[in-house]
Amino acid sequence: MTYSYDYPHPAVTTDIVIFTVQDNALCLLLIRRGEDPYKGKWALPGGFLRMDEDIEHCAARELAEEAGVQGVYLEQLATFGTIDRDPRERVISVAYYALIPSDDVALQAGTDAAEAQWFPLSDLPPLAFDHSDIVRMAQQRLSAKMSYSTIGLQFMPAAFTLSDLQRVYEIASGKTLDKRNFRKWVLSLDLVEETGHKQTQGAHRPAMLYRVKKPSRIDIIK
Amino acid sequence: MTYSYDYPHPAVTTDIVIFTVQDNALCLLLIRRGEDPYKGKWALPGGFLRMDEDIEHCAARELAEEAGVQGVYLEQLATFGTIDRDPRERVISVAYYALIPSDDVALQAGTDAAEAQWFPLSDLPPLAFDHSDIVRMAQQRLSAKMSYSTIGLQFMPAAFTLSDLQRVYEIASGKTLDKRNFRKWVLSLDLVEETGHKQTQGAHRPAMLYRVKKPSRIDIIK
Repeated sequence: MTYSYDYPHPAVTTDIVIFTVQDNALCLLLIRRGEDPYKGKWALPGGFLRMDEDIEHCAARELAEEAGVQGVYLEQLATFGTIDRDPRERVISVAYYALIPSDDVALQAGTDAAEAQWFPLSDLPPLAFDHSDIVRMAQQRLSAKMSYSTIGLQFMPAAFTLSDLQRVYEIASGKTLDKRNFRKWVLSLDLVEETGHKQTQGAHRPAMLYRVKKPSRIDIIK
Repeated sequence: MTYSYDYPHPAVTTDIVIFTVQDNALCLLLIRRGEDPYKGKWALPGGFLRMDEDIEHCAARELAEEAGVQGVYLEQLATFGTIDRDPRERVISVAYYALIPSDDVALQAGTDAAEAQWFPLSDLPPLAFDHSDIVRMAQQRLSAKMSYSTIGLQFMPAAFTLSDLQRVYEIASGKTLDKRNFRKWVLSLDLVEETGHKQTQGAHRPAMLYRVKKPSRIDIIK
């Protein structure tokens, strides 16, 4: 430890990248800033760390306060701290990312933020601070994770077909997947189960609706 | 942003996990603390962030000051911030990890720290603060990376045989590798080249000595 504790301290914040899949697009929740700097600009939900809370708790709290989103899969992404990233003072931000099912999107109603809105990643507005760098890294991490993990199940609503699940994996990873291999992989994980109901869509033959098994769901969130 | 800037700020530090492979063991560089808390205990090299430096610069500077190690592959690991991790005050630590070639180990001579010493990961002393948690995560990250990346080349001295390289990969990943497949993989990367010299060891037939190609080495460090 090279310096004394009198040394000036930076501010510490968390910023959260919340992904969901809506209308066949990977989407991101943004908050319109009500104050300077970047007043009126879109930014990631986030805020200052309290001295009496762990960093992840801060991220979960800000997610609830600003976006009305609760109980989701939260993972630390990286810490951003370039000297001039905030015009007010030195601010170190610990970034997290979260995935929420498309049918939980309504949760954002609870927000206390000026304005919260979902944007497709392919069509984001200019972002405040270095938030576009944070988003870029989050998208890379998500895309890499999707290809070898069950993280994608976090996106799924209460009931879904295996085609829905494959589409979500393809959208979030940006890769086309082989239908037979994907189904084999998913079912081999034993993390989803049949709901007993089927979905009829247009001329297609009715497709079985699945749900994520509850215990495994908890495992994934852990 | 939920809170005003008057809100008290935590201290921010960096801690660095420096790996090398020595005597067929994955080793870690530790510093013996010269002051309280944990005076006399072993800890990761690290120190406080200056307001005028980026976080990674802080990690590189502390690595040089405390361990005399310079110009190595540095990667952000994760940020540790549990409320009570430092008895003095709230301290958020951004952890990095670095790999250094066994023949650079002498560099640590330049240290300004009370005492610096290499320890095999299999035989670490009790560590100060939550540094054992940081080490555990760094080991997991390294082991995962070794299995699908060229990061391991960072461990290699100026000249090495392909058997040396395979041993380093096996030691750092904790996995046994197939000799033929490993050589095929390494040579296919076109990141190493023959030095033109051979190494004679005991009864074995002389083995070609390789070196990491300079440009690619730079790529890896990037």
